Amino acid sequence: MITSTSNAQVKQIVSLQTRTKARLETGLFVAEGTKIIKELPESLRIRVFASESYLINKENSNFAAEVGAEPIPDVVFRHMSDTKTPQGILAVARQQKFTLEDLLSGGPVIVLEGIQDPGNLGTIIRTGEAAGVGGILADRETADRYNPKVVRATMGAIYRVPYCVTENLQTDVKALKMRGFQVYAAHLKGTCFYDQVDYQKSTAFLIGNEGNGLTDSLAALADTYIRIPMEGKVESLNAAVAASILMYEAYRQNR
Amino acid sequence: MITSTSNAQVKQIVSLQTRTKARLETGLFVAEGTKIIKELPESLRIRVFASESYLINKENSNFAAEVGAEPIPDVVFRHMSDTKTPQGILAVARQQKFTLEDLLSGGPVIVLEGIQDPGNLGTIIRTGEAAGVGGILADRETADRYNPKVVRATMGAIYRVPYCVTENLQTDVKALKMRGFQVYAAHLKGTCFYDQVDYQKSTAFLIGNEGNGLTDSLAALADTYIRIPMEGKVESLNAAVAASILMYEAYRQNR
Repeated sequence: MITSTSNAQVKQIVSLQTRTKARLETGLFVAEGTKIIKELPESLRIRVFASESYLINKENSNFAAEVGAEPIPDVVFRHMSDTKTPQGILAVARQQKFTLEDLLSGGPVIVLEGIQDPGNLGTIIRTGEAAGVGGILADRETADRYNPKVVRATMGAIYRVPYCVTENLQTDVKALKMRGFQVYAAHLKGTCFYDQVDYQKSTAFLIGNEGNGLTDSLAALADTYIRIPMEGKVESLNAAVAASILMYEAYRQNR
Repeated sequence: MITSTSNAQVKQIVSLQTRTKARLETGLFVAEGTKIIKELPESLRIRVFASESYLINKENSNFAAEVGAEPIPDVVFRHMSDTKTPQGILAVARQQKFTLEDLLSGGPVIVLEGIQDPGNLGTIIRTGEAAGVGGILADRETADRYNPKVVRATMGAIYRVPYCVTENLQTDVKALKMRGFQVYAAHLKGTCFYDQVDYQKSTAFLIGNEGNGLTDSLAALADTYIRIPMEGKVESLNAAVAASILMYEAYRQNR
């Protein structure tokens, strides 16, 4: 049993929890918490650790046995955990890779440019699965989807929504257009309300950074600027809320 | 100038930042950051503090003068701030009080039962203003709306959305029904899709706790259980997203 926080495996886990670069270099990530590990496909699971106090509970220890979790002292577990009050179970897991092709199975493609907040990104992935999106295309400036806060916020949807990270968002959006996708930019300059558009054809939505919106060069690729109307003095909606409203309007039309 | 973190005023601000009880007892809260203070109505503003490094910038120092900010050393400011990287300006402000009557001006009433996450609550208030809700009715188990994380997430909407905290949610929901409100519970047991309902009459939405949903006793008061359909294996949506989808569907129908 690992008993020291200076163990190499423990150090790797801390590094995977805290450093995007470590995740990128290894192709690994950490899934933490019972629910997130329950939903983790076995093929992605590499190694699971459970704290000694987690294992006291009968239901927990059964689950730990099922996923082959190794026991670990609480103090070491706390050191590896990303949360203040750890549930007591975490897995080292393999990242999934998708290409643009994988996103084209039917529902809308959600294009993310520079989404910064991990909670927003996780929520977009979670709502994306619920609204039946084809997949998500994100640039490198968007938060890493294997950031532990993103993983938690997806509530397991991370394993099921095709998600492609691209070095060049513009090239890929052009590729979508070549394939007949209608590209809609959520934009304050939009003249067309989001609910006055027909999303029953192949659809892509461009969603920009929380503070600055879309860059002009990406927005320029859109066929139509759409706007979510707002009352009062609100200047913008939360990015995850805006994306969710668009995804659910498309889903509503296609049901 | 205040130069010590043990100054009584500094201690009060820290207490207002961190303790719901301190906010409740004093009827005060802390508004932090340029945008949130810009939107703060003057009638609610009591005292403003700006860090010395904030005041170096010309635009900042003009704004600070406009709101009568008192300079304060950076080290003291950091001690008072709720954020890791403080913007450098905060205000002590008076809380607003609303009654149930204040929520009845037209748009739907959003009823919150035990919403725990400050980000979710702030986002609901922000989207609520944008979607033109009449107001928000919340129980004591819902996070305190003057929690600094809630205030920030509202992006200023907190000053503009009527918001009533009630000791007895059931009594107040019954009062809404007496006044002819149709009460809809967002509920996994719902048989009716959220977009198949007519929200052009007086409408109230019941939104439950993130993990457990609505209590049976509150849900029992609903006229109709509505459901937001979901694809895939998603068990539920984020509470702020679910509330936002309902608010925007009602707004869509009423535009």
